[in-house]
Amino acid sequence: MGRPVRLDELQTPALLVEAERLDANLRTMSDALPGTRLRPHVKAHKCTALARRQAQRGHAGFTCATIREMEGLAAAGLGEDLLLANEVVDARRLSALDARVTVAVDSAETIAAAADAGLHEVLIDVNVGLPRCGCAPDRAGALADLARSRGLGVRGVMGYEGHAVGIADRGERERLTAESMEKLLAAHVDVGGEVVSAGGTGTYDCNAAATEIQAGSYALMDTTYAALDLPFELALSVLATVVSVADDYAVADCGLKALGMDHGKPAIEDAEVWFCSDEHVTFAPARRLHVGERVRVWPSHVDPTVAYHACVHLVSGDRLVETWPVDLRGW
Amino acid sequence: MGRPVRLDELQTPALLVEAERLDANLRTMSDALPGTRLRPHVKAHKCTALARRQAQRGHAGFTCATIREMEGLAAAGLGEDLLLANEVVDARRLSALDARVTVAVDSAETIAAAADAGLHEVLIDVNVGLPRCGCAPDRAGALADLARSRGLGVRGVMGYEGHAVGIADRGERERLTAESMEKLLAAHVDVGGEVVSAGGTGTYDCNAAATEIQAGSYALMDTTYAALDLPFELALSVLATVVSVADDYAVADCGLKALGMDHGKPAIEDAEVWFCSDEHVTFAPARRLHVGERVRVWPSHVDPTVAYHACVHLVSGDRLVETWPVDLRGW
Repeated sequence: MGRPVRLDELQTPALLVEAERLDANLRTMSDALPGTRLRPHVKAHKCTALARRQAQRGHAGFTCATIREMEGLAAAGLGEDLLLANEVVDARRLSALDARVTVAVDSAETIAAAADAGLHEVLIDVNVGLPRCGCAPDRAGALADLARSRGLGVRGVMGYEGHAVGIADRGERERLTAESMEKLLAAHVDVGGEVVSAGGTGTYDCNAAATEIQAGSYALMDTTYAALDLPFELALSVLATVVSVADDYAVADCGLKALGMDHGKPAIEDAEVWFCSDEHVTFAPARRLHVGERVRVWPSHVDPTVAYHACVHLVSGDRLVETWPVDLRGW
Repeated sequence: MGRPVRLDELQTPALLVEAERLDANLRTMSDALPGTRLRPHVKAHKCTALARRQAQRGHAGFTCATIREMEGLAAAGLGEDLLLANEVVDARRLSALDARVTVAVDSAETIAAAADAGLHEVLIDVNVGLPRCGCAPDRAGALADLARSRGLGVRGVMGYEGHAVGIADRGERERLTAESMEKLLAAHVDVGGEVVSAGGTGTYDCNAAATEIQAGSYALMDTTYAALDLPFELALSVLATVVSVADDYAVADCGLKALGMDHGKPAIEDAEVWFCSDEHVTFAPARRLHVGERVRVWPSHVDPTVAYHACVHLVSGDRLVETWPVDLRGW
């Protein structure tokens, strides 16, 4: 991949990260959760270059959602303590990694998968209120016993309060988090081990029960998280080119294949976004734009946006600082 | 990329295409719109191997949405007649292609871009009711004159009735299409040329005005188009593995990074889909599933789903026939 010299020569749509805002977000978080208190989740950025910056700030352990993310971090020399915070039924690729590997388990089948693959360590994944993976809290102790009987080290418990992280009202967010952590700590009593892994960007400062927080979105942010009362700045946008202008709207080349859309439409400054098509966003700007002009499109959900792009450009004002491959994509 | 021998050994999530249904869809469409009456849109599948099958059925010309799609088709030897049905303000990469290249223009700026790049042929893109690209119908003649004055050959007009293609009621769909084509034909009188390019999968059989139809979704389909009264079968699914089972729901490893979500949730047979997370779908199955079992997840929108995947597996029953790279991704 050639490295363009000027930002205005980038082929659009192009994923941009504001360098100063990224730095501020990383600093704010590591001030609040230093060292191993934070286990950054790489699913939000899928980028080993960005993970390296997190490691340089003292966070030696990482959280992953896929085997591919685990492999990529290990290959990049960032394998000091990798947690696959997700269930897998075929763990064989994980046993080949040059890394400390811990995997979440919530059933006899996933424990067997970890043991059969020759892995050494697991966390018992507990359902704390989000209907997704995780065993019922009162099953956690039995699963820990089963894991130990298969020769696996049980490092502790994990439980993601995903139903709380996006709640706008802080009081309600705190209440749901406390309720979830009560379940997790009860399971922890039965399971043992030193790790209580939980949390996300929305609850990083209201989850006192977890020994480590699995936040990821804080580094780049999106318009959904920016609507909460969090001290992190929007750092991720998609640079787009205006390709058509009508009397009351304009069209730029950033569409459904450059944006995660599950949280809704993206935002454009001083404009009302009407809709997105495969390769277009149609929007009503406050002033008349001209064809060829560039606009920043701000995604509503960082994770599925980043996953569409082969690389991300670190920028400072109009200067292109560096280009990073989004090298943890795929499975 | 290694080619797995058995379908049940595929790493999930994995994009699958049912070979027989794909064949049936290609046949149905080329029976209805033989040869150059169809100009297949490759944005829906982004796959030169699939485009080659369309070419083998007699469709020598293709429609593209991005420069990358144009480049990929040309490099694959499928460049007999390529239309970039989209506006670009920097057309220089197109002039290097070993292909017949036509590009849509709707402004003085995009005409200048085509001329400056040394391209030879354009279509005048006309707004026929969808607020996206395209000039006002009464501006088309003047733009054609401008293009000719810059040495460009004007092959005719293009106008996409995108606001009609998804309408469930056939009568209303026909009415909107007729209304749109009235505008396009009026512009065509002013523009001249032999091409009237329009249409999509939803209007392929009710647009008699266009000389060529730009349908793409018909080959693979999605649950949104399948809800219309069209003779095409759902051929595209994502194979997923059940990784966790609770009393009233199950979780499989196919989420927001494997599915276009702008048209809503995917479908799973004999199950109610609750929600998707980055790497998960949570659903309530009619019967209790077991961890490790595989399910097919049917996307609601084909185009942004395919764009997440590096390859697509052609399958026949439980047999893996072939693996095709999704080689037209990116920009």
